[in-house]
Amino acid sequence: MKSYDLIILGAGGSGLAGAMYGARLGLKSLVLGKSHGTESSIGGVITTTNIVENYPGFIKLTGYELSKKLEEHAKSYGLVKIKEEKAEKIKKTKSGFLVKTKKTEYNGKTILFTTGTRWKKLDVPGSKEFENRGISYCALCDGPLFRNKIVAVIGGSDSAAKDALLLTEHAKKVYMIYRGSQIHPEPINFERIKKNKKIEVINNTNIKEIKGKDVVQSVIFDKPYKGKKEIKLDGIFVAIGHIVISELAETIGVKLNKEKEIVINHMTSETNIPGVFAAGDVTDKQFKQLITGVADACTAAYSAYEYITKKES
Amino acid sequence: MKSYDLIILGAGGSGLAGAMYGARLGLKSLVLGKSHGTESSIGGVITTTNIVENYPGFIKLTGYELSKKLEEHAKSYGLVKIKEEKAEKIKKTKSGFLVKTKKTEYNGKTILFTTGTRWKKLDVPGSKEFENRGISYCALCDGPLFRNKIVAVIGGSDSAAKDALLLTEHAKKVYMIYRGSQIHPEPINFERIKKNKKIEVINNTNIKEIKGKDVVQSVIFDKPYKGKKEIKLDGIFVAIGHIVISELAETIGVKLNKEKEIVINHMTSETNIPGVFAAGDVTDKQFKQLITGVADACTAAYSAYEYITKKES
Repeated sequence: MKSYDLIILGAGGSGLAGAMYGARLGLKSLVLGKSHGTESSIGGVITTTNIVENYPGFIKLTGYELSKKLEEHAKSYGLVKIKEEKAEKIKKTKSGFLVKTKKTEYNGKTILFTTGTRWKKLDVPGSKEFENRGISYCALCDGPLFRNKIVAVIGGSDSAAKDALLLTEHAKKVYMIYRGSQIHPEPINFERIKKNKKIEVINNTNIKEIKGKDVVQSVIFDKPYKGKKEIKLDGIFVAIGHIVISELAETIGVKLNKEKEIVINHMTSETNIPGVFAAGDVTDKQFKQLITGVADACTAAYSAYEYITKKES
Repeated sequence: MKSYDLIILGAGGSGLAGAMYGARLGLKSLVLGKSHGTESSIGGVITTTNIVENYPGFIKLTGYELSKKLEEHAKSYGLVKIKEEKAEKIKKTKSGFLVKTKKTEYNGKTILFTTGTRWKKLDVPGSKEFENRGISYCALCDGPLFRNKIVAVIGGSDSAAKDALLLTEHAKKVYMIYRGSQIHPEPINFERIKKNKKIEVINNTNIKEIKGKDVVQSVIFDKPYKGKKEIKLDGIFVAIGHIVISELAETIGVKLNKEKEIVINHMTSETNIPGVFAAGDVTDKQFKQLITGVADACTAAYSAYEYITKKES
């Protein structure tokens, strides 16, 4: 069985940055990708973002490019191993933690959860039936399939707005359908939405049903918009938020809040369990951005280093 | 008088990143450099670091290059103004804060302190007399003056170790003199120190006096090292830590801890005064690195945005 100083669950940007920092501190570090329970592997959710403009130091690059930079940075240290394996179980042991994957098991003196989130699924009649048949959760991945078509983004967040903006590169018309009173992207993206003639925002509206034949053909609203309760479209991009992936943390007693986010000390990235740390979208941080997750993961690596050093001295 | 949504005191990496993020959120942002009371201006203390390898996303670049990237990122937004002026006074007003410089004054709805630190000065006989005559606080700036000479770094931190490593590029011999029992750089730099034949570490030793004629010629120890109480050398690089620059914050009632660091909420970067935020080396963060200061400044910008939005709604 292989032993590590630091086992990081989740190979997104935060996990990769944590591994880099751990290695600088002399920690033999293992990053397990796919451990977040989604299909995305190394690079994490940022790889589904087209343009990143808010990671300080890079004026503009794609999410994929940024994730590659973080991965290469981590890999530039011999002490870092990155594996595309999913952690299935964790157990506390005398010396630390035992992490089991389908393939094998690993011993870690410390654990860092950077497991992130998965997409919240739309739950209305038709939403399951038409998944991947017009319904998508990744505008970057599936946008090009809707060249000159009509699509809708469901949601009012900054992510939803960025999806809508991205989709105007392909589609001829993009609705943003939001159940709240007003969509609430970052101001810079709100301005872009307002200026973009392909985008039409429909606030105060829920989707009641998705209809089609083999593929999506229309959506039914809960109340009329411009006199119509049904609009025709070809694609639906769902961006109604995320669910944190904290089930495995819970099994070893890590404290979660009501939203199931891992409660951390925001100064040190410690959880309530000694030797267990968390950073990034899985935590109870209010302001979840790649830059804050990355920084908190570096802090976690430092805290792990201090924890090990104290324990062994 | 010019009015801003966010006035940032300190144009180091954290301040620049905060301005970038503020602008993305639609905040008219002013960065006042030199406000930290040191001679360094735009870019801050990272510009005195030769090689930066621990800012996630960049495997290796100079501190100056990194600060330029952060500056260009901030300047890529029209809402950001960066001025080389020092804030001399702050006053609370009805609408926010009045910041006075020698030149003029500015109104800010919110304030972000990223004032950082200044070098802690060595205080022994000769230390004032020989400043800039053999005694330096910046290895990167003054290292090349000591080509093939003998120098010493005073201090045991990671910064001290990096200074020593850098100085081996120029000097023929580099002592590291540390009063504690063992120098404590990051493990990766400790290994480099051990492998570098030009470096000799002297632990458990204080400097009692610096002697010379016009320029530094020797140091006197408090106890013998290898039988000698005095060693000859040409240069002394002092790296015994920093003092936070929080005097201005104190004048408006911002809470400081015993070390005079600004006490912040580590989740939100808020201080105890509504509308006043802080990030980076000036705060009571334990793990002070450029990446954590940058992230906390982005968080502060977001908190400032939320503060203004709530107040005006």
